[in-house]
Amino acid sequence: MSTPAYLDLQRRHERLHHLGHMQHIVEWDQSANMPSKGSDARSLALAEMGGLLHQLATDPALKALLEAAEQEPLSEHQRANLREMQRVWRSANALPQRLVEAKSLARSRCEHAWRTQRQANDWAGYLVNLREVVKLAREEAACLSDATGLSRYDALMDQYEPGMRASEVDRVFGDLRSWLPGLIADVQVRQAQELLIRPQGPFPKAAQRALGLDAMRLMGFDFEAGRLDESVHPFCGGVPEDVRMTTRYREDDFLPSLMGTIHETGHGRYEQNRPRDWITQPVSQARSMGLHESQSLSFEMQLGSHPAFAQLLSPLVIQHLGAQPAFEPGNLNRLLTRVQPGLIRVDADEVTYPAHVILRYEIERPLMEGLIECEDIPALWDTKMMELLGRDTRGNFKDGCMQDVHWGGGAFGYFPCYTLGAMYAAQWFATLRRSVPDLDTQIAAGNLQPVFDWLNANIWSQGSRWETPELVRRASGEALNPAHFKAHLQARYLA
Amino acid sequence: MSTPAYLDLQRRHERLHHLGHMQHIVEWDQSANMPSKGSDARSLALAEMGGLLHQLATDPALKALLEAAEQEPLSEHQRANLREMQRVWRSANALPQRLVEAKSLARSRCEHAWRTQRQANDWAGYLVNLREVVKLAREEAACLSDATGLSRYDALMDQYEPGMRASEVDRVFGDLRSWLPGLIADVQVRQAQELLIRPQGPFPKAAQRALGLDAMRLMGFDFEAGRLDESVHPFCGGVPEDVRMTTRYREDDFLPSLMGTIHETGHGRYEQNRPRDWITQPVSQARSMGLHESQSLSFEMQLGSHPAFAQLLSPLVIQHLGAQPAFEPGNLNRLLTRVQPGLIRVDADEVTYPAHVILRYEIERPLMEGLIECEDIPALWDTKMMELLGRDTRGNFKDGCMQDVHWGGGAFGYFPCYTLGAMYAAQWFATLRRSVPDLDTQIAAGNLQPVFDWLNANIWSQGSRWETPELVRRASGEALNPAHFKAHLQARYLA
Repeated sequence: MSTPAYLDLQRRHERLHHLGHMQHIVEWDQSANMPSKGSDARSLALAEMGGLLHQLATDPALKALLEAAEQEPLSEHQRANLREMQRVWRSANALPQRLVEAKSLARSRCEHAWRTQRQANDWAGYLVNLREVVKLAREEAACLSDATGLSRYDALMDQYEPGMRASEVDRVFGDLRSWLPGLIADVQVRQAQELLIRPQGPFPKAAQRALGLDAMRLMGFDFEAGRLDESVHPFCGGVPEDVRMTTRYREDDFLPSLMGTIHETGHGRYEQNRPRDWITQPVSQARSMGLHESQSLSFEMQLGSHPAFAQLLSPLVIQHLGAQPAFEPGNLNRLLTRVQPGLIRVDADEVTYPAHVILRYEIERPLMEGLIECEDIPALWDTKMMELLGRDTRGNFKDGCMQDVHWGGGAFGYFPCYTLGAMYAAQWFATLRRSVPDLDTQIAAGNLQPVFDWLNANIWSQGSRWETPELVRRASGEALNPAHFKAHLQARYLA
Repeated sequence: MSTPAYLDLQRRHERLHHLGHMQHIVEWDQSANMPSKGSDARSLALAEMGGLLHQLATDPALKALLEAAEQEPLSEHQRANLREMQRVWRSANALPQRLVEAKSLARSRCEHAWRTQRQANDWAGYLVNLREVVKLAREEAACLSDATGLSRYDALMDQYEPGMRASEVDRVFGDLRSWLPGLIADVQVRQAQELLIRPQGPFPKAAQRALGLDAMRLMGFDFEAGRLDESVHPFCGGVPEDVRMTTRYREDDFLPSLMGTIHETGHGRYEQNRPRDWITQPVSQARSMGLHESQSLSFEMQLGSHPAFAQLLSPLVIQHLGAQPAFEPGNLNRLLTRVQPGLIRVDADEVTYPAHVILRYEIERPLMEGLIECEDIPALWDTKMMELLGRDTRGNFKDGCMQDVHWGGGAFGYFPCYTLGAMYAAQWFATLRRSVPDLDTQIAAGNLQPVFDWLNANIWSQGSRWETPELVRRASGEALNPAHFKAHLQARYLA
């Protein structure tokens, strides 16, 4: 059984994997370590590297190899790998090298300047760089649209969530919009009765870091294959063999960093447990960004905000930050499930979070479709914040449209993944409860292994073996069903 | 005046510079950050990257371009750049791609395992990896020898110290051997009379780090273009726009880390001040490893162990570690100039240091010439340590032949640069004293600027514009003259 074309492709992807390793580590370094004067040289280096990887991914020989491999006698797993190779190829070949390099350069510059501009609330300064990124992202959308026949926004979104369409997002978000504002209001009324004890700071950074590391241990992170550092915008990067998580600390409040760390640990474990035998190949990749988010939210929300989980967290908090009445498990859980419409997406509770995502979706989609311009963003942001969450953001760009790294980084079409992820996570736990009926007792007893085992068997170890609908069906026995998310919120917040 | 071939070469070197940036940051990360399970993937990634850079540096089109550029009307500076391009080309083309990749892989593996093997005093384990590195280094020496007509060891050394030959090293080291043992003995007799107060530890790592950062500020390091981290073996890496220095801390003794940090700051400032207009080009590179070491030793030894410098260091030490009788300037200088034959090269004083280098030179040269094998190293080490420094290292591989990263990293021919650097540094300060007669008063007053200005004007800003003998002559008015080093040691230790 001879498969020369497939084997050639496999070797080429090995090479891309190794060179991608360089890029991922250097990108992490850019966010976690790089001093300011290193920025220009770093932008040029990443642009050169991006261009080179793009060149390899668009080698003219690939087209014939992909066609030849189709005719070769492949195993089921190899055939899945070939399908993912084709997806990578289509995506890379849709974009001219010039555009890839220009975008890498523009986003590096924009992101770097954003670090200081955000602190200075300098929208005017940010706008100069953002315009350039948006211009290039629109060119990218046009190229991707031409190559796939999808609409421009669908073509962008397809890079992060293959197969997902704006029409589907509209349907799901439309459903959300119909009940979410009412649910937020109901939960707030109910929580107004609760006695809530606020933690008393300050909480030194070193103690918070030690707490975060213990929380990562509780969640099963492998510290021989990764680390935790600091960055302005928390993320999970690096490579599957060496996962680089970041967080940021506020000395007046430890919960954002703690829960952010638990969130990123979900991403981290997905990466650490991707199929190791296929690690250099596209079929080992995490399935989609929505599924990735379903892991971080399984950790942060399904587990992290579970009433029984607070019994595990409480002793760790007391160990690192000292005993306080606020750290009693019941109160800790009330703090973690407090619903409060706020300005910052990454600090939002799971009930108001979808509103932040809907807002961004309703801005980035017309922005990519050319219906609005960058200059229009702040006013739209102000209007929608008031409409969806009743908060005033006028003049506050820092905590408004400049709070996220996504747009400056050229990642348009990404935001819906967060809320799709929340829905998938609710669906996983609904399934898990059917196979492990005493799940809540297990969690309270500190046994999280059934959760990790289920996620590993159904999501992590599957990589990109199946397309998303098939993966979801195999894992949960049905297609994406937003009813699980609604049921989860009702059970946790209104039962 | 048309220079198409030269401009083509210039663009190619820009590309190499940008991709080299990726490699340098990732190599720093490997030493400063990477967890153990990341090692195999990192080795493969660096090997792939090394192979790719080698492929670009050996593009068959280069030969004709270099020949054509020779005929083009170039400025003096461009001509110097072309000379360096040719040197880079000769060095790269001497080695087959297979060898470059195999060596990168072998050295990554060997260095990574060495981190734990050294701690475990595991010579047998280390030997397995070292043999492979030595085998490939010998192949490399043979290829370089064929390409240059130099002997094998000369060909290896020429990569680090262009133009230097073993015959010249023999002459200089022969001179050293004639008076160094006597001088070491004389200094020890003299210092036996001194009253020396030992610092009382422990010295917490965080306080030592803060002290090191202040020392770097005193030495003019630009923290917007670099940083200080930790690694098992201290080094200065990264890129000129973002210099990555490392150190290691011992809580029982702060001086090795403090003086090591001052040492690396000398390397760091050379890199930070390389000609910026030519930064992507070979002509901007630091001239040689010996000259690099002349900068670190100008900082650590010429300045750092200067009696007047202790007056600047003393308040910083007291500020970070608390007041102790040992921190009084006179005593601090006695601590910094204490001559004591020891086991560890990087902790050695400037008087015994050359003995460590002679020992290594006398082992690595026959090892590369095939006259001895890796198995012979420990016994030779034991004999020479006893002969040169009167110390017993039998069975102590950890503090013997396993203490350095060089051989495991495949860097044979590098060690002589350390002592050449010490000689150059003494020559710079002899020159500097002629143009700034009150230099010692200036240093005592905390004005180090005349030193930095001289080094910047004569060494840093010159990059590789001149070949070494010309650079040395322009800077000091004469060729390398070891008499300055002898005079320096006699004046400081026996006057």
